[in-house]
Amino acid sequence: MAPLPLRTWLTGAPPRGQDVAGACAVVVDVLRATSTVAAALGHGAACVIPRTDVDEAFEARAELERRGEEPLLGGERGGFKVPGFDLGNSPLEYGAERVAGKSLILCTSNGTAALELCHGASRLYAASFVNAGATAAAVAKGAEPVILCCAGKEGAPSLEDVCCAGLIAASLLKVYRYEADDATTMAYLCWKYYAADVRRLLKTCNHGRHLAGLGFEEDLAFCSQVDALPVAATQRDGEKLVVVAQD
Amino acid sequence: MAPLPLRTWLTGAPPRGQDVAGACAVVVDVLRATSTVAAALGHGAACVIPRTDVDEAFEARAELERRGEEPLLGGERGGFKVPGFDLGNSPLEYGAERVAGKSLILCTSNGTAALELCHGASRLYAASFVNAGATAAAVAKGAEPVILCCAGKEGAPSLEDVCCAGLIAASLLKVYRYEADDATTMAYLCWKYYAADVRRLLKTCNHGRHLAGLGFEEDLAFCSQVDALPVAATQRDGEKLVVVAQD
Repeated sequence: MAPLPLRTWLTGAPPRGQDVAGACAVVVDVLRATSTVAAALGHGAACVIPRTDVDEAFEARAELERRGEEPLLGGERGGFKVPGFDLGNSPLEYGAERVAGKSLILCTSNGTAALELCHGASRLYAASFVNAGATAAAVAKGAEPVILCCAGKEGAPSLEDVCCAGLIAASLLKVYRYEADDATTMAYLCWKYYAADVRRLLKTCNHGRHLAGLGFEEDLAFCSQVDALPVAATQRDGEKLVVVAQD
Repeated sequence: MAPLPLRTWLTGAPPRGQDVAGACAVVVDVLRATSTVAAALGHGAACVIPRTDVDEAFEARAELERRGEEPLLGGERGGFKVPGFDLGNSPLEYGAERVAGKSLILCTSNGTAALELCHGASRLYAASFVNAGATAAAVAKGAEPVILCCAGKEGAPSLEDVCCAGLIAASLLKVYRYEADDATTMAYLCWKYYAADVRRLLKTCNHGRHLAGLGFEEDLAFCSQVDALPVAATQRDGEKLVVVAQD
């Protein structure tokens, strides 16, 4: 059997001629959108509905409220909670006492844009260090090409996303049938360098230093916990992220 | 003094909001455009004039011939010499007996496009492994921000270009005043992994395997020779690449 392509998009955008059609896409935005998705679903949220545009996020909340739900609206602009939102983009805000049983609409700067970009994939996962292992296990059950989409920041690559893609690639490459492209090899090499100290990675990378400066150091500690949450987050109904049922 | 930004463009295109204005740009296309530029200038070519479009390359030759010059026209499409060109894109074709004293018009798929993209930089260099050290030394004489532009392949990153950018970054970072962005850190980590065996890198990377399959294995050996040619290639008159006078 021919090996399946395992590709990495380093900057949140597809190289020319590549798209997600027919592929399993994994969106990675370690700081902090996909870590927050994992926290919410790991703590019992019913689903996460990504929205890139703030107005559309408010509309999605209103729509769910009209249907009698009591959704939560979370996310950030410039790192901080949007006025009128229930929650910001810190995964520490998404404990079970707050999110269990709720639908969550999440609106962030880069992560939700990457999720929307990959909307047409055959399967779509949202992954970060806290649920990398569960995600890799779920991905490897399929037989499609895989695209690891690093959200990055405004079109530039983020070291933490690339390292997390490298961790997921390392898991997948233990399954014989994948073949890595050059970008995946880069991600793997970056991951190997930081594998022994993810906390240091998150203190070193550009966006981690920025968040520490804004006072979010505890978020970095949370986001550095590899495989702390055994939940894979996948797309259902073309837009909701839900927990994948485990075997 | 505030540190100078040292940025790497992994995929031959600028992240949003970044451009070369006011920066020193270094274009890297190890396989093979910038290795060929270094070979030609290192072997005495008068200058290299990059052209991305084949028709424009023919026109540039005709224009120089009208002025009484006897230029060479080199380059490739799909890895092979273009019909009507004098030379292909193998650096081994660019020996002193062929190129000394000549103006060379070079037309390749990705490398010359990256050179044209960076045309407006305050200074512009073309670098590969064979002249990385000479390039870094020339770059470090200035006091602008630096952009390492990896040509890549059709919008996807090439491992060999990223590793070469990492080598140049490693030299520059020994000078205190540069500050690396995340992409530069990635390039540096990839370089450190392959530093001990560049030949293996060029046999491993996607485009190296492709070229070996086309019969260009000797080109890989040539392109893997770190600092074999002590020439920095810089832009003059807004378009010609010439050897920088060494101190």
